[in-house]
Amino acid sequence: MIKAPKESLTILTDMVLPGETNPLGNLFGGELLARMDRACSIAAQRHSRKIVVTASVNHVAFTKAVPVGSVVTIEAKVSRAFKSSMEIYVDVWVEDRESQQRTKVNEGIYTFVAVDRTGSPVAVPQIKPETKLEKERYEGALRRKQLSLILSGKMSPVDATELKALFTN
Amino acid sequence: MIKAPKESLTILTDMVLPGETNPLGNLFGGELLARMDRACSIAAQRHSRKIVVTASVNHVAFTKAVPVGSVVTIEAKVSRAFKSSMEIYVDVWVEDRESQQRTKVNEGIYTFVAVDRTGSPVAVPQIKPETKLEKERYEGALRRKQLSLILSGKMSPVDATELKALFTN
Amino acid sequence: MIKAPKESLTILTDMVLPGETNPLGNLFGGELLARMDRACSIAAQRHSRKIVVTASVNHVAFTKAVPVGSVVTIEAKVSRAFKSSMEIYVDVWVEDRESQQRTKVNEGIYTFVAVDRTGSPVAVPQIKPETKLEKERYEGALRRKQLSLILSGKMSPVDATELKALFTN
Amino acid sequence: MIKAPKESLTILTDMVLPGETNPLGNLFGGELLARMDRACSIAAQRHSRKIVVTASVNHVAFTKAVPVGSVVTIEAKVSRAFKSSMEIYVDVWVEDRESQQRTKVNEGIYTFVAVDRTGSPVAVPQIKPETKLEKERYEGALRRKQLSLILSGKMSPVDATELKALFTN
Amino acid sequence: MIKAPKESLTILTDMVLPGETNPLGNLFGGELLARMDRACSIAAQRHSRKIVVTASVNHVAFTKAVPVGSVVTIEAKVSRAFKSSMEIYVDVWVEDRESQQRTKVNEGIYTFVAVDRTGSPVAVPQIKPETKLEKERYEGALRRKQLSLILSGKMSPVDATELKALFTN
Amino acid sequence: MIKAPKESLTILTDMVLPGETNPLGNLFGGELLARMDRACSIAAQRHSRKIVVTASVNHVAFTKAVPVGSVVTIEAKVSRAFKSSMEIYVDVWVEDRESQQRTKVNEGIYTFVAVDRTGSPVAVPQIKPETKLEKERYEGALRRKQLSLILSGKMSPVDATELKALFTN
Repeated sequence: MIKAPKESLTILTDMVLPGETNPLGNLFGGELLARMDRACSIAAQRHSRKIVVTASVNHVAFTKAVPVGSVVTIEAKVSRAFKSSMEIYVDVWVEDRESQQRTKVNEGIYTFVAVDRTGSPVAVPQIKPETKLEKERYEGALRRKQLSLILSGKMSPVDATELKALFTN
Repeated sequence: MIKAPKESLTILTDMVLPGETNPLGNLFGGELLARMDRACSIAAQRHSRKIVVTASVNHVAFTKAVPVGSVVTIEAKVSRAFKSSMEIYVDVWVEDRESQQRTKVNEGIYTFVAVDRTGSPVAVPQIKPETKLEKERYEGALRRKQLSLILSGKMSPVDATELKALFTN
Repeated sequence: MIKAPKESLTILTDMVLPGETNPLGNLFGGELLARMDRACSIAAQRHSRKIVVTASVNHVAFTKAVPVGSVVTIEAKVSRAFKSSMEIYVDVWVEDRESQQRTKVNEGIYTFVAVDRTGSPVAVPQIKPETKLEKERYEGALRRKQLSLILSGKMSPVDATELKALFTN
Repeated sequence: MIKAPKESLTILTDMVLPGETNPLGNLFGGELLARMDRACSIAAQRHSRKIVVTASVNHVAFTKAVPVGSVVTIEAKVSRAFKSSMEIYVDVWVEDRESQQRTKVNEGIYTFVAVDRTGSPVAVPQIKPETKLEKERYEGALRRKQLSLILSGKMSPVDATELKALFTN
Repeated sequence: MIKAPKESLTILTDMVLPGETNPLGNLFGGELLARMDRACSIAAQRHSRKIVVTASVNHVAFTKAVPVGSVVTIEAKVSRAFKSSMEIYVDVWVEDRESQQRTKVNEGIYTFVAVDRTGSPVAVPQIKPETKLEKERYEGALRRKQLSLILSGKMSPVDATELKALFTN
Repeated sequence: MIKAPKESLTILTDMVLPGETNPLGNLFGGELLARMDRACSIAAQRHSRKIVVTASVNHVAFTKAVPVGSVVTIEAKVSRAFKSSMEIYVDVWVEDRESQQRTKVNEGIYTFVAVDRTGSPVAVPQIKPETKLEKERYEGALRRKQLSLILSGKMSPVDATELKALFTN
């Protein structure tokens, strides 16, 4: 079975409350990481129709501070599926109340695994990317998986063909 | 000024409460990410003596589920300092109540930036690693920084000397 | 200035966590009311581009229990604007993980008022409904406003022309 | 079995903490709705001695802002009982620290249903109002029930005798 | 100025939610301590009409477990006032849903100090106990204050006349 | 079986978030009591390897306010064990970000009881204090236990030999 990324699109719009801010009055990084994880887990669940658990956070970059009272929109979509794991790309925007302009503040890449009631991995549908951005993220997912296997010592750098090409050409 | 990693060591021991668990009765990935972020930010603050903000989460791998009622110990330590940014390595253990045995469930790498009251970056002390593990993590930090610059399009793969060596030798 | 309801559409998708449930293991009514209020306040803010405060909850009916672990989607949209107040209609769905079927569990009607920094009411753009459902809700809003004025003693039942017509024809 | 409203009186006095406030520094509407729901559910449980679930919020009007640090007192009492449902009236006061004067900031009407362990409705005791205010609220409850049935399409406006009288006399 | 204990009576009735329980499914001791502290601080504020801060917890004994879903009623009342400090006695009951019988699960003694905006202590009204229980608690407060001064090294045991009498007669 | 206090040492380092503060911008007493309770319960669990429940809070003195943004370190250690109960001493420090100097803000004494799955008390290992401070606290624990038994009416003051000696010599 093959599904499109848009079938798992998950939108979580919410406000930044005063209890979630750091001494500068901005949203705590950790609080945003937790919200992104929840959005990604719903996207992974929508794609797989299974219970899902966080396997790893591959990369999250915080590019702008998010002040208290901001409206934050988190959009998560499965970018590629492997055997039982899924890579989810998540984008975070803040909108200005007066101009309604959206600014991207953050993006992240999470990996989830689909499991059964006993916690054992189960197979998930594959992904067929549609838009240009979805295709780029789909391609990148393989390199990121190789990198992750190298970092955890499960693959040798010389076998990571996709990744190696980046450095040797 | 040069400091040792141990000067920033931060220990956060706490229990997994029922309100923080997923449908399988295990600690939510997002909740753990938030706690790790708080521990890392204290370590970064202890090293720099400045206000610090999360810049990125480089990698967090969840290797074992953490059931409700578990005692979780998070240990964070600055692994390398750059101009105004610091890489913090964080290890997470769960201990068994009866045997008191500790099992590693998770490790993560966060980057924080030291800022002044206006949010502008300020310089931080450098790191001199002492133990074997600290030295390994110190070395790896440079490769991770190159990787991060490549991923964000600020460095070309062919210029990432440290990283390139991994794939071409 | 006239805006369409869809310009204020706000989607808040999130999971029901174990800490938000009653003794039957279902989402607490009060917790859902709070989430709906946050979604409505963002819709009102998107419509008015002002600070907004809750003026009243006109009606919320809970038709189905929402079990722990459910994915809840809240969709809020301004249904009609008056001078400085706005009526927001909010629909709540739960989706089944395996079949991905959405079931409506709840709908509510909230009123918000746009205010300035001192808390004084300020004017808001008017609404031009587009879909059949938006038109029905737009019409109903006037009857609900009359009803609200009667309930608070600010209008006599015999002057509530729109509402009176319902009972005398 | 017949009970008096005062037998279900529930008082919830608590402070407004900084983490529960909006950008104007006042208690969030949604947070107050959740506290009111908890107080009403305890009143409904005290009256029925059964598990109770929120059926609807009939009306809540926010008349004054509640600043951070305020002491809020919520008083809930069953105003009328039907077969398995109960209407609960809830009043909310804020008190001034220095003068100790109480100001009413809010009132609401909630409906709860008593259920058994499987979630099926069960019968509840009837109410005999005692004070003048309790009698007024008891009378109004019938009109509100008719209105609710009309709004949900379960009763025709012309059959709502109690309510119709309001508009035609 | 002299006030009666009943003028500061504060009642906080609330439910035990699943997110506040330990692995045995009972309310966490720490969560109950926090709720008791909030009730006591409101009682102290009602007595003094000032900002108040926790000075000490003299004794809290947990005699019975409080299961999830319980209705907990906390009643706090000032038992004695000194120069700027106040002793508050707090009693905690749980009620059984079916029998409506109240069981005492806990009592505690807290000390609060009234302060001005800068945090400096300010004088508070004195207390005139009325009931038998209030008189007993009023008398005991002096012995507890002596004990507290001895424990903190500010009074020698031989000077604690009230307390000494207990042991030597 | 005999264990040293250091075997149960539990360190909980965390930040004071804005949502946990009182109107003066300082950490709420009740919030700190809850964190101390969690640290003590982990220490008691590490000593006994059993499920533990809070039995009493013997004394907690708040000597300094803890402003928002502070890094708070809580250190808990079993000071003495009786049959199935344990006394835990807990010290609380705040550190200054710039000078990194630690200031003691609070200390408390909690008692926990080890229980089995049914809630019945079970025996715990005894304690052999090592440092001077541990020995002082170990000695004091007996007097505090006598005092607690007197306060709860389970022992007559004249039988409290250890305590009586304080007042009569």
